[in-house]
Amino acid sequence: MNDFTALREYMAACRGRTDEHLERWLSPTVAASPRLADAMRYVALGGGKRIRAILVYAACEFCGGKPEQADLPAAAIELVHAYSLVHDDLPAMDDDELRRGRATCHIAYDEATAILAGDTLHTLAFELLAREGGLDDGTRVAMIRLLAQAAGANGMAAGQMQDIESSGAELTLEALEEIHWLKTGRLITAALLLGYLAARAEDPLREQALEDYGNRMGLAFQIRDDILDVTGDSEELGKPGGSDSRHEKETFPELIGLEASREQAGKLCRQACELLGDYGERADILRQLAGYIISRTH
Amino acid sequence: MNDFTALREYMAACRGRTDEHLERWLSPTVAASPRLADAMRYVALGGGKRIRAILVYAACEFCGGKPEQADLPAAAIELVHAYSLVHDDLPAMDDDELRRGRATCHIAYDEATAILAGDTLHTLAFELLAREGGLDDGTRVAMIRLLAQAAGANGMAAGQMQDIESSGAELTLEALEEIHWLKTGRLITAALLLGYLAARAEDPLREQALEDYGNRMGLAFQIRDDILDVTGDSEELGKPGGSDSRHEKETFPELIGLEASREQAGKLCRQACELLGDYGERADILRQLAGYIISRTH
Repeated sequence: MNDFTALREYMAACRGRTDEHLERWLSPTVAASPRLADAMRYVALGGGKRIRAILVYAACEFCGGKPEQADLPAAAIELVHAYSLVHDDLPAMDDDELRRGRATCHIAYDEATAILAGDTLHTLAFELLAREGGLDDGTRVAMIRLLAQAAGANGMAAGQMQDIESSGAELTLEALEEIHWLKTGRLITAALLLGYLAARAEDPLREQALEDYGNRMGLAFQIRDDILDVTGDSEELGKPGGSDSRHEKETFPELIGLEASREQAGKLCRQACELLGDYGERADILRQLAGYIISRTH
Repeated sequence: MNDFTALREYMAACRGRTDEHLERWLSPTVAASPRLADAMRYVALGGGKRIRAILVYAACEFCGGKPEQADLPAAAIELVHAYSLVHDDLPAMDDDELRRGRATCHIAYDEATAILAGDTLHTLAFELLAREGGLDDGTRVAMIRLLAQAAGANGMAAGQMQDIESSGAELTLEALEEIHWLKTGRLITAALLLGYLAARAEDPLREQALEDYGNRMGLAFQIRDDILDVTGDSEELGKPGGSDSRHEKETFPELIGLEASREQAGKLCRQACELLGDYGERADILRQLAGYIISRTH
């Protein structure tokens, strides 16, 4: 049985790099309002699994790139993720008061500050990709396009809209999968493709393998989230367990049962790993990450 | 006395181009949720003066560029402006129910939809600059950087934060000018510099003239807004007159009086026009636009 030790070290190293870069780019003077700077830092530097950043690093290295090539897109995608959490937590949206074991931004500050902190983190993601050194213009543009398409009206934000619209409704499995794909899957896949771009790889087969792996692991990630929401407790999750049912949101366990949900996540994980079958040791981290994603406890 | 006929035609032509492009990029299927697509269209296609877009076109042509070169940045800056209006109108922010003579987005839809429509218009601005044809990568990156810096934590959004923080407080003229500069001025200046980039001009003196013109006209624009808020009526403005005092927001007329505010706007306009003194007829439109900005009635 895999004890994930090597993976844990790898993840900690990626997390360290991401936090270091975010700390640099989110200095206390990052905003022309100290309150706004403070709220941006509270949100974006307040821990988090950094799964998306780790996937950027892992995909970049899978494609032969060095970690430093992935620093910028890894930070940018975490900023987009952070912005989405702040806005999703707002009273008009999911109305959550706890996130990562701390008060959500609109509780710690207020709603106006939370809206603006989300907005400025959102802008900063694109600003960094356009501003900071180390990337050629063509790669920057490709990254910005990819990230915007995954985050916007046909991606993450649309998933949140569909999620809210379907609250209280009975969903088909297909509809639930679409919501998950938009809300979580698109950004997970974008993380992998950002890693591909960061490595400056020119290998369409490898790019396709990453995309296919991402599409499966994005759904598996969300199924695991659904499972944790049913089985996890508030302390371990850093947010209230059972929040999906509180929000009358349909989940995989509710639609197909807990055991079948676990099986489905396992199946997606196996498929994702098989897709990387041709790549030998190079793909070890990605395979281990797949295993981690479906067995994580928070 | 200038009757603005030529200018009016020019503005109408720019507005027509902008609306046409926005209509194309905001099709009814722009989002994976019809409700979200509808709200995005409601906000971004719902009229508006399109001043920022017009400034992009005018600056582009001032630098020898053709209108079609300015289409993309003109649309992008209007999307950023539109996103900011939706979020500024939210109950937690300025709590406005009327905008451009119509119900604001959170009234016409609901708060969650308004937050997400703002978010997706925001993303779309950067997506378009990275996605649509007609620009080389270097110009795209420069435009994205410029727009993000003007909109983000040291620009428009920071201005909104300062504006909210200072609500009910007595401000110095200097502090009020900073709020105006951040909240309005930075995007006005960005519009002019986007026009410069769009024209692919390489003329630092001209670029500097546009920036200086923009800095003055941005402030003049906001002073005129303050004046209209005091003197205008709801029908002409498309929003309730007196909304600044309702929000306990400090304004130029309150700080220095109505007449001195008019004088100040006039002075900024004259300075802006003088800055363009070396450019003869080429600068006619920009000079006329300056006159329009300080005399507009809505």
